[in-house]
Amino acid sequence: MRENGVRRAWAEGRGVINGWLGIANSYSAEVIANEAFDSVTVDMQHGMVDFQAAVTMLQAISTTPATPLARVPWNDPAAIMKTLDAGAYGIVCPMINNRAECEKFVGACRYAPVGYRSFGPARGIMYGGADYAKHANDTVIPFAMIETAEALDNLDAIMSVDGLDAIYIGPNDLAISLGCPPPAEPVEPVVIEAVATILAAAQRNGVVAGIHCPSGASARDKIEKGFLFTTIANDARLLAAGAKTEIAAARGG
Amino acid sequence: MRENGVRRAWAEGRGVINGWLGIANSYSAEVIANEAFDSVTVDMQHGMVDFQAAVTMLQAISTTPATPLARVPWNDPAAIMKTLDAGAYGIVCPMINNRAECEKFVGACRYAPVGYRSFGPARGIMYGGADYAKHANDTVIPFAMIETAEALDNLDAIMSVDGLDAIYIGPNDLAISLGCPPPAEPVEPVVIEAVATILAAAQRNGVVAGIHCPSGASARDKIEKGFLFTTIANDARLLAAGAKTEIAAARGG
Amino acid sequence: MRENGVRRAWAEGRGVINGWLGIANSYSAEVIANEAFDSVTVDMQHGMVDFQAAVTMLQAISTTPATPLARVPWNDPAAIMKTLDAGAYGIVCPMINNRAECEKFVGACRYAPVGYRSFGPARGIMYGGADYAKHANDTVIPFAMIETAEALDNLDAIMSVDGLDAIYIGPNDLAISLGCPPPAEPVEPVVIEAVATILAAAQRNGVVAGIHCPSGASARDKIEKGFLFTTIANDARLLAAGAKTEIAAARGG
Amino acid sequence: MRENGVRRAWAEGRGVINGWLGIANSYSAEVIANEAFDSVTVDMQHGMVDFQAAVTMLQAISTTPATPLARVPWNDPAAIMKTLDAGAYGIVCPMINNRAECEKFVGACRYAPVGYRSFGPARGIMYGGADYAKHANDTVIPFAMIETAEALDNLDAIMSVDGLDAIYIGPNDLAISLGCPPPAEPVEPVVIEAVATILAAAQRNGVVAGIHCPSGASARDKIEKGFLFTTIANDARLLAAGAKTEIAAARGG
Amino acid sequence: MRENGVRRAWAEGRGVINGWLGIANSYSAEVIANEAFDSVTVDMQHGMVDFQAAVTMLQAISTTPATPLARVPWNDPAAIMKTLDAGAYGIVCPMINNRAECEKFVGACRYAPVGYRSFGPARGIMYGGADYAKHANDTVIPFAMIETAEALDNLDAIMSVDGLDAIYIGPNDLAISLGCPPPAEPVEPVVIEAVATILAAAQRNGVVAGIHCPSGASARDKIEKGFLFTTIANDARLLAAGAKTEIAAARGG
Amino acid sequence: MRENGVRRAWAEGRGVINGWLGIANSYSAEVIANEAFDSVTVDMQHGMVDFQAAVTMLQAISTTPATPLARVPWNDPAAIMKTLDAGAYGIVCPMINNRAECEKFVGACRYAPVGYRSFGPARGIMYGGADYAKHANDTVIPFAMIETAEALDNLDAIMSVDGLDAIYIGPNDLAISLGCPPPAEPVEPVVIEAVATILAAAQRNGVVAGIHCPSGASARDKIEKGFLFTTIANDARLLAAGAKTEIAAARGG
Repeated sequence: MRENGVRRAWAEGRGVINGWLGIANSYSAEVIANEAFDSVTVDMQHGMVDFQAAVTMLQAISTTPATPLARVPWNDPAAIMKTLDAGAYGIVCPMINNRAECEKFVGACRYAPVGYRSFGPARGIMYGGADYAKHANDTVIPFAMIETAEALDNLDAIMSVDGLDAIYIGPNDLAISLGCPPPAEPVEPVVIEAVATILAAAQRNGVVAGIHCPSGASARDKIEKGFLFTTIANDARLLAAGAKTEIAAARGG
Repeated sequence: MRENGVRRAWAEGRGVINGWLGIANSYSAEVIANEAFDSVTVDMQHGMVDFQAAVTMLQAISTTPATPLARVPWNDPAAIMKTLDAGAYGIVCPMINNRAECEKFVGACRYAPVGYRSFGPARGIMYGGADYAKHANDTVIPFAMIETAEALDNLDAIMSVDGLDAIYIGPNDLAISLGCPPPAEPVEPVVIEAVATILAAAQRNGVVAGIHCPSGASARDKIEKGFLFTTIANDARLLAAGAKTEIAAARGG
Repeated sequence: MRENGVRRAWAEGRGVINGWLGIANSYSAEVIANEAFDSVTVDMQHGMVDFQAAVTMLQAISTTPATPLARVPWNDPAAIMKTLDAGAYGIVCPMINNRAECEKFVGACRYAPVGYRSFGPARGIMYGGADYAKHANDTVIPFAMIETAEALDNLDAIMSVDGLDAIYIGPNDLAISLGCPPPAEPVEPVVIEAVATILAAAQRNGVVAGIHCPSGASARDKIEKGFLFTTIANDARLLAAGAKTEIAAARGG
Repeated sequence: MRENGVRRAWAEGRGVINGWLGIANSYSAEVIANEAFDSVTVDMQHGMVDFQAAVTMLQAISTTPATPLARVPWNDPAAIMKTLDAGAYGIVCPMINNRAECEKFVGACRYAPVGYRSFGPARGIMYGGADYAKHANDTVIPFAMIETAEALDNLDAIMSVDGLDAIYIGPNDLAISLGCPPPAEPVEPVVIEAVATILAAAQRNGVVAGIHCPSGASARDKIEKGFLFTTIANDARLLAAGAKTEIAAARGG
Repeated sequence: MRENGVRRAWAEGRGVINGWLGIANSYSAEVIANEAFDSVTVDMQHGMVDFQAAVTMLQAISTTPATPLARVPWNDPAAIMKTLDAGAYGIVCPMINNRAECEKFVGACRYAPVGYRSFGPARGIMYGGADYAKHANDTVIPFAMIETAEALDNLDAIMSVDGLDAIYIGPNDLAISLGCPPPAEPVEPVVIEAVATILAAAQRNGVVAGIHCPSGASARDKIEKGFLFTTIANDARLLAAGAKTEIAAARGG
Repeated sequence: MRENGVRRAWAEGRGVINGWLGIANSYSAEVIANEAFDSVTVDMQHGMVDFQAAVTMLQAISTTPATPLARVPWNDPAAIMKTLDAGAYGIVCPMINNRAECEKFVGACRYAPVGYRSFGPARGIMYGGADYAKHANDTVIPFAMIETAEALDNLDAIMSVDGLDAIYIGPNDLAISLGCPPPAEPVEPVVIEAVATILAAAQRNGVVAGIHCPSGASARDKIEKGFLFTTIANDARLLAAGAKTEIAAARGG
């Protein structure tokens, strides 16, 4: 089975730089995947992206060395399994608040006897290889999002779930859940502290810590702090920011 | 009929800053159209965009004050008329090389007796208003692309075609046609001179001059030179450039 | 944040006339939204419409003053949140049968601490404005559908859920649930009485009452009875009815 | 090969009532095709419909007894042949102005030696039957649109082209071409007279006359005048008209 | 209401040969449906197919005598009801492990008082007929998939659920759940035995037994064993196998 | 620039085995491209495939070593250039009947000064590499279809056009043009002779000869005769044939 590049990076101790796709289009996905991201995630939660478009976007990523990942809209076996069948090599699942939710999530990513994923990796077998059934459980990465006050109360219970490889912090939701406004980069002490607490718990539990970042500089900072998976904004934000900058240059001033 | 914002800008002597869409998606179109562009053009020639997606992109632009324009793949009445019916307020037509081609193009943008556009502005009438039939000929803007050596030999013949409002320079094709490589910003003297020649011819013929630019700084420079319509790169380039910059920041160096 | 026109109408005591979209197409959505509806709802339950098309339909509605709403297929946080992120200003949720279901539904429409909606209003922020995060909880309208015998037994428990703004009667399901055939306009006394009971409960609980109607005349009747939100049939029915009438005229007789 | 219902109606002297689709959706197409139209035409010229959607719409029509037809955007062999391959049983071609254009059009609808249609009826053979190649030339109907002053000067030259089965009047373009505004129902004497002239020429040349009508009443009138093919408005117009009427009823007056 | 061909076959004691669609395209669906399958199933679980495409595929099947069925991604009322509204005449539901899950599934397929399906058969009524509401409960077929060790422990509890018409074995998942690799054709004694046990339980409970087969020969074998519903591979597998065979022939050897 | 695998095969004297796609879907395209074809062609002429789907199909092919090619609907610069921009490495153009048509076709595939292709290889540059502009003229392959009696009269005039790399025989159209029925495999002596004549002319003019074949066996036969490019049927035919065979096996006999 084709190796999971994200796992390889982690094995080498490298922090992964991840791209993020909210535009439902395979061409923009290919544009992003052709930049030097280690992995690219199709966001089916807050992205304006549904399954049918996601398939073509995973294909577009598959034309490059970047590892194809996806975020599902919710902790729903249907979405998780179908997205894996489409060839995603990892699933980011929002709002994992306790151990039971984490077990439900991880189980959906694994074939029996470890989990309860249903077999039928239509595109996965083309991307992964003919021995997909044998190695998928060890290749696919579940990322449990830690982004609520409830999850903060259950960090070890969540992170000790067997088969969970990584957690992923959503700073916006974490901030809101802690009573703060949602800036992309945490500024409130309570949020910054929560991020550190989550990171420490991840390291304590032998789970990779990931986090969504608003910029490359932020990603670098997080990697230096010990995160091994960092996302830089998303396609729509890069587009808007680029346009804003160039228009300003055009209008002078 | 709803006023054409590009015409208003020209009447006020303002240089138009135009966005350019090569990604076939209405959400990315809306992201771009929400920045401060005066107009946004759906590129059906070199963009990875076909008519069905273009309709939704024109709708997305129509949620904002930006004026919706489109580039058609070729000087083909079918594409020109159908795109106008979909609510485009201007058509950029590639490779207009002589007077006959320009007449064919402009005629496709105008109802009889001025031209031969067929009537049926399905979405145009919703965007433009109930009096679309009466005012469309004076509202819609044809942009003839000047981008070949042959066109350089026919500048006055092309630009004096009745009803032609604007020309648009494609620097890449112009460079190739003059035997130079295709940089987005002309650097070869022969190309720079050709651009100046075209601009002068446009001004001489009372036609607005437009040009494709690789950046906001370039657009500003062109406006200062007398161009009244400047496009800044396109969505895919902004996306790639933004990703490249942020990845570099993330990886440090 | 852009005001919710439906809330404004209610504040002014006006009964809202709502359009309903079951055809997955942004052009037909724009045709409907250009008529004088106060709001237009994308029906993702019984409509032949999925999320990807719904995004373009919400955009089409956004080219007009009509308020964009959506019905989700089921009381599912994934669908509710994703549709809100796409810019819907209200969510109609089917089959709310008891207080727990209503709390689950309303919570999915509200950010913490009121609810548990996840943050990432990709299109919502473009339609609503930069201060979306601050005002969304007070702007977005949850409509709980009351359409079963079980719900009839739990009216006050449902309608007293904090944050519930409106209920919406589905006369077909209500009739079936009460053992009657499903006509669009209630005719069986038991159904008519149930509708009156629900309306009275809504008024008692300070919740707006809405109802699906087969025609404009029916909508008018319901508004006169005290409903402040009435839907007229849907696009497919209007289309079929219009065709039937015109064909009959053509065939004479 | 499956019989062409339109030809059968003509053989029986019945005036065909035709539906018209400008909404790019297979469900709305099926809704229309389930009404009592004899045939339904996918409008790829002024409709907001491109080929990919047209295929699904032709399939939707094929679930009913209505005969599937299509209007192409222009007199272009690529569009004509591809649409026939998709299973259309007749092609309406806009703006046929002279004999050469008519020959080009009819030839694109016929296999050699009669015409130059390329062979590969992918969906046509499923809809028509295994003997498609043998009977297609006698089954498929070309409709040449007569809608310009130039065409009026060439009626016999156009209508005597071998293999032309029918002409189709576009009243809007005809009116514009004659210097009048484009009402859906001709009111100017010069246009009314032109329509009569075209009808007479069609009857003289043994060609069926068809015409676009704004309503069922108009269609009936035209059939009584001798037209054997009449279209009633289109889906978008029926939708808008239905909504307008019902909203008026809802708002009272 | 249009008769369900699968029920008719069963009434006649005939084993149904079912086609299976994992390619999200209405043309390939029509190609398959034009072969001599009794029924064709749109696979929204492991197929690369989402609802919007499924609608067009059900339409494509509806151009033929084959009965349209669908597999939903999970035991989710939203997906089940929406797919029935789109005209499916039967629903295959994965991973039914116990009586409660089966009751939830069957209830979603039936209107009250038998179940809790919500009313709004948009396309169903066009395919089925105007009396859809009256007969749908007796026409639509729920197929509960039996494919886990847990289900094996609950065969009678599952199969005795009122209204369950059929069960469907997924040999791959069954094998995995029993600790074996997932071959399309069971070879391990434990799996072969489990299949026989399920078949016997189905016959004991008066429920039709169906099974997924890798080939026509396997389907024949299963019918001879007493199965009355057999699927042959799927579109993607047929495509790959056909290509492989022909390429081998081309390359010789 | 990425090498063109088809050119490499030809340089090595190997006959290319080509797949053919008429189903507008990126997943079925990927299924085909994962078999051992040397190249895979997206058929936009007789395939039910338009540009927007073709982009995703070219991406799907690009996940494999197979070379991506496309057939355009007609000798139309718009379609040719746009498809090349989407990353096709060769264009098959139907119905090249004389030298002028061939020059028009080849010119559309080449940048100036050799041809008149417009510059903007949006996806081409991602697939081909950053030096696309420099090498595209030598990489992209134009295939002129020879399939009419007129072309038979102009073989040397067509094949001696500078820059034409290959011709491609369409046996169906060739047969029809010669007054024979269109079998996929020529059986009439006049057609067989014409094929031989075309092959000889190609070899005489130093142009590669290609041909469409109904099966792998036929492809092998043609390669043995001297053809260096052979297509095996298409996806839809493989699908139908596979289903037919398996159904027959299931039904026994």
